[in-house]
Amino acid sequence: MLHSFGSDNHSGAAPEIMDAIINANKDFSEAYGEDETTKQAITLFKKILGENTESFFVFNGTGANVVALKALTKTHNSILCPETAHINVDECGAPEKATGCKLIPLTSKDGKVTPDEVKKELKNFGFQHHSQVKVLSISQPTELGTLYTPQEIKELADLMHEYNCYLHVDGSRISNASAALGLPIKSFTADAGVDALSFGGTKNGLLIGEAVVFFKKQLSEDFLYIRKQNTQLYSKNRFIAAQFIAYLKDGLNIRLASHSNNMAKYLESRLKEISEIEISRPVETNAVFAIIPQYLCNELLKKHLFYVWDEITNEVRWMCSFNTTKEDIDTFVNDIIRIVTINKI
Amino acid sequence: MLHSFGSDNHSGAAPEIMDAIINANKDFSEAYGEDETTKQAITLFKKILGENTESFFVFNGTGANVVALKALTKTHNSILCPETAHINVDECGAPEKATGCKLIPLTSKDGKVTPDEVKKELKNFGFQHHSQVKVLSISQPTELGTLYTPQEIKELADLMHEYNCYLHVDGSRISNASAALGLPIKSFTADAGVDALSFGGTKNGLLIGEAVVFFKKQLSEDFLYIRKQNTQLYSKNRFIAAQFIAYLKDGLNIRLASHSNNMAKYLESRLKEISEIEISRPVETNAVFAIIPQYLCNELLKKHLFYVWDEITNEVRWMCSFNTTKEDIDTFVNDIIRIVTINKI
Amino acid sequence: MLHSFGSDNHSGAAPEIMDAIINANKDFSEAYGEDETTKQAITLFKKILGENTESFFVFNGTGANVVALKALTKTHNSILCPETAHINVDECGAPEKATGCKLIPLTSKDGKVTPDEVKKELKNFGFQHHSQVKVLSISQPTELGTLYTPQEIKELADLMHEYNCYLHVDGSRISNASAALGLPIKSFTADAGVDALSFGGTKNGLLIGEAVVFFKKQLSEDFLYIRKQNTQLYSKNRFIAAQFIAYLKDGLNIRLASHSNNMAKYLESRLKEISEIEISRPVETNAVFAIIPQYLCNELLKKHLFYVWDEITNEVRWMCSFNTTKEDIDTFVNDIIRIVTINKI
Amino acid sequence: MLHSFGSDNHSGAAPEIMDAIINANKDFSEAYGEDETTKQAITLFKKILGENTESFFVFNGTGANVVALKALTKTHNSILCPETAHINVDECGAPEKATGCKLIPLTSKDGKVTPDEVKKELKNFGFQHHSQVKVLSISQPTELGTLYTPQEIKELADLMHEYNCYLHVDGSRISNASAALGLPIKSFTADAGVDALSFGGTKNGLLIGEAVVFFKKQLSEDFLYIRKQNTQLYSKNRFIAAQFIAYLKDGLNIRLASHSNNMAKYLESRLKEISEIEISRPVETNAVFAIIPQYLCNELLKKHLFYVWDEITNEVRWMCSFNTTKEDIDTFVNDIIRIVTINKI
Repeated sequence: MLHSFGSDNHSGAAPEIMDAIINANKDFSEAYGEDETTKQAITLFKKILGENTESFFVFNGTGANVVALKALTKTHNSILCPETAHINVDECGAPEKATGCKLIPLTSKDGKVTPDEVKKELKNFGFQHHSQVKVLSISQPTELGTLYTPQEIKELADLMHEYNCYLHVDGSRISNASAALGLPIKSFTADAGVDALSFGGTKNGLLIGEAVVFFKKQLSEDFLYIRKQNTQLYSKNRFIAAQFIAYLKDGLNIRLASHSNNMAKYLESRLKEISEIEISRPVETNAVFAIIPQYLCNELLKKHLFYVWDEITNEVRWMCSFNTTKEDIDTFVNDIIRIVTINKI
Repeated sequence: MLHSFGSDNHSGAAPEIMDAIINANKDFSEAYGEDETTKQAITLFKKILGENTESFFVFNGTGANVVALKALTKTHNSILCPETAHINVDECGAPEKATGCKLIPLTSKDGKVTPDEVKKELKNFGFQHHSQVKVLSISQPTELGTLYTPQEIKELADLMHEYNCYLHVDGSRISNASAALGLPIKSFTADAGVDALSFGGTKNGLLIGEAVVFFKKQLSEDFLYIRKQNTQLYSKNRFIAAQFIAYLKDGLNIRLASHSNNMAKYLESRLKEISEIEISRPVETNAVFAIIPQYLCNELLKKHLFYVWDEITNEVRWMCSFNTTKEDIDTFVNDIIRIVTINKI
Repeated sequence: MLHSFGSDNHSGAAPEIMDAIINANKDFSEAYGEDETTKQAITLFKKILGENTESFFVFNGTGANVVALKALTKTHNSILCPETAHINVDECGAPEKATGCKLIPLTSKDGKVTPDEVKKELKNFGFQHHSQVKVLSISQPTELGTLYTPQEIKELADLMHEYNCYLHVDGSRISNASAALGLPIKSFTADAGVDALSFGGTKNGLLIGEAVVFFKKQLSEDFLYIRKQNTQLYSKNRFIAAQFIAYLKDGLNIRLASHSNNMAKYLESRLKEISEIEISRPVETNAVFAIIPQYLCNELLKKHLFYVWDEITNEVRWMCSFNTTKEDIDTFVNDIIRIVTINKI
Repeated sequence: MLHSFGSDNHSGAAPEIMDAIINANKDFSEAYGEDETTKQAITLFKKILGENTESFFVFNGTGANVVALKALTKTHNSILCPETAHINVDECGAPEKATGCKLIPLTSKDGKVTPDEVKKELKNFGFQHHSQVKVLSISQPTELGTLYTPQEIKELADLMHEYNCYLHVDGSRISNASAALGLPIKSFTADAGVDALSFGGTKNGLLIGEAVVFFKKQLSEDFLYIRKQNTQLYSKNRFIAAQFIAYLKDGLNIRLASHSNNMAKYLESRLKEISEIEISRPVETNAVFAIIPQYLCNELLKKHLFYVWDEITNEVRWMCSFNTTKEDIDTFVNDIIRIVTINKI
């Protein structure tokens, strides 16, 4: 079977993760997160991200974002985000419905926003006719595979705090960011002033499971109810907790993410040989974006699985995952070369 | 480790289920339910429940109920249910928040409602000041372990349809009902006129996963969006689908449920020897409800895990699950006998 | 034209109120409550109900209740109320939709609840599966025309505060309560520990307008946004404010309410002569409830306008309003006597 | 007292409107829109806008927009609108909260959108991850005082219908559009394919009241419940209905709007004399937008009431209303000239 470059969640679970699930499947344990495994996982999060960390497990990325944002807002608030944000374009209006808030999309470059862009919307506080801005939500890495530096995140956090607002990070691929930056996750979340984090697992080798992490205890005060009311509480939660323990206890998350990042770099390097292909975004994590000719796109799609990001510009997205191999990439690139060559004749 | 009689979701996954997950973990597959495994599971549901069946996978029971009810209602509708319903007491207001509807709790006996009780609320149609009744939601088996006969369900369905309303069944333990009645699930759902069913898995040996089943195609028209917007769409859905295939393809669900039902019967039979214990509800599936003396309750809880259902009457709930053994029950009952005996001295 | 006993809002505006509107209709004024008239009305509320009072004007009774409850709750809370409450039966699910909360109806006698009844639901705090009780909402007078004493209200408020919850009063006819009790409104709201009050006007001679009153400043912190987001902010608010000034500045509200209360008493006294009619609720404000023979109900409805409260028991409701006259009542009662007499023949 | 150029709702009610209210204030009438006056008003709307018109009265503009949009959508839909739309910037997130939908703001010129701009967002139908576009909402006239031609509206309606979507018009100043175009409202709403219209009254001389108008009967099927549940049902509705009868029966709405439009034209003509002032938008209805020097803005605001539309560009908005006089304008312009002259010295 050919490798899919469609998404990092086209891959299954990493072997270590599957073992952790199997091991967790014995005896009995309390349900709904009151079991010992869950408690251990929460302790592990504190160890990695700081003692003030409160973490909670949920099913999926949309769920993580939605309940995190619900915890930070009231219905009359608005949430700023880059126009490319997953919460803005890929969650079928889940954030609006669950929070009652307005989303305000910001112009972004390669998926990132700047303090200047944000500042334009930090206005009309106290004006009853306007939704009151309360949260900026950014993605690290972004939906375009790019990265914020810790300093950039800190500047955004400081700006939001200055206005009595919060910074949320959608970290569905947060371990890829850590691996790429060569920095612990804490350094660009807790230490950079981030208030809440959607900590992803499923896209980097977990079978299922994400965490919502708050870096200030009082933000999580009502979270047990928010998670339950928004249908994100898992009865047999030990199975998500056990995965996260295997994932985080000795750096598996970074090893898996490094691999997928490296594969993207390798893919990029191979593509550079091909003049018909224009790499369209900086390749900083595990995504390669490229603008390719229409005929190439059509031919490739007959055999390979990937997404056309922008049908007008013919920009495509090729994702690498924890189990992408060099051979997978060589096969893929050789197919590209073959198609391009035939076309030239 | 002592067996837990706290809940059937204190147990993990059945071995066949775990095998199915392991087998599904190879290669790549499309995400978000567009993979082949999901398609096979959907076909299997059609085979079991009828060709008009449309089924969709979700994470958990609250999620299943909420998105099913959302699909059947508009915000100005009301939803009737027994006062004991899970949607009424155990979902932290998730149904109200997600649907915008009013829940109207009905007086019930042992968790069941009668057509007469329902009829009292089938009124004020067309009156703009009142929420318009649209759905009756019942549980089969009920939260008290009791069962509706297929005929009883049919009468409720007919009544609702007469008023242009729907019947939803919360079937978080639907296989236990089937095993206990000795009837296929279809006979008391699709064939009895049920419109939508929350088809449970997690409480009977699945690692994770429930299904929402519609028996009339048009009811599921918007369901893909409803599931996504309400955060119940799983990226690696093949893993839930694979579990359901293993669960349903040759009756594993019934074998597991029969076992837990039988264990409850065995527990009941052993308890009948003990005069201090009053079985308080008919034991029809895998739950045993009993009213017990305060001292016994206190002593037992020091060693065993179970829930006090009603703190005023001292009614307790003891659940059996797919991996409860006779030995577990004997150990438990012997502890009861020991405590009771000591108390008499 | 025959008088309507259907509702106190079948009457129009009292002459003094109409004059106030006409007088307010000059020149220009700022919109959305930032005008001088609104400021004066707010000051007047402080004078009458205490300096800590924060009051806000809204359009209608359902609006007042909904935004008041929204200010007191988070979506995962529940709201207790008598089963007969307007918010429970006559607002088409507006409270559930706007607040996201669960409403828990309590058994009541003549529209009133007791601390014992409330206490039964003050439980499961901290249990993530249950909506967390936050508000008790009562009506003064009740939907059945009955009254709480200030002491009874105080006991309910104290009970709620003991559990860190709030007491909301739906006072759509609050002036009728004041007139009937012979006590200032403050004595059984602010002084009795009430947290928030829907202060009615429209049912007692206002053309349009209600107020939402908070007795603790911090409860109204977000209220400007809540009112706006829930569509209850009036651009030309001076016209509601001017009505309330005329209504409250020298006791017009009490004069109008006393009259309608007295008319109900007079109606009751005349009905006592008629053995076929059973007064079914204590007549304490401006409503007379009675159980009457079917033939009488049918005949009366051919000529008079009123509501059948309970079609099964044949209980009817006859409302008096600020402009009901003794002659209106005599005409009505004479018609009853005529029908009863003919029937006997 | 100086005239306010702040908003057309800084004016009160027109004398004919006040008379209509006074005349409606007699006897009794049924409540909640079941009275004869309301029925007459509904008939009048049919006469003016076509027999298929279903109209409903509500309190205010935000209310009208919100319930109209709720009637046209499901929660998983999105609503397109110009970025300048009232629903997008001035309703504190009411549309998102009430409908659960995502709002997608479109780039606009002078408040208007073009079919090309709309088409860019008519995509991803059937893709479960994206909110499904269902409505385009435009304002006629726009928030910037500009107008769509009937043909332009028809093109937008046709485009939306082609995609099985709806066109909603926020007509809070719809009579100003009619007066300016010299065309009946029907010609650029019902006849142009508009599906639903928020028909404004308060900004053009009504004391209070707006209407929601549907041009296809089936769109209003659930509207009674939607209006009630969203707190926009008025008990003494005859008072809004009576205003609309006076407003519409012989063209008062057009006479009032023509006057305010003419005053804006006169203001524009006078401002053209002043080189320091740049008229920044086409003056097509009753608003004059201008970019003015900072010193002028500051000085003027000390004495006159108006809004600074854009604090960065120093663009201001001056609104004329039904009772603005030439003298008011002369006084205002003379003050401008005085300030400008002093500044030059």
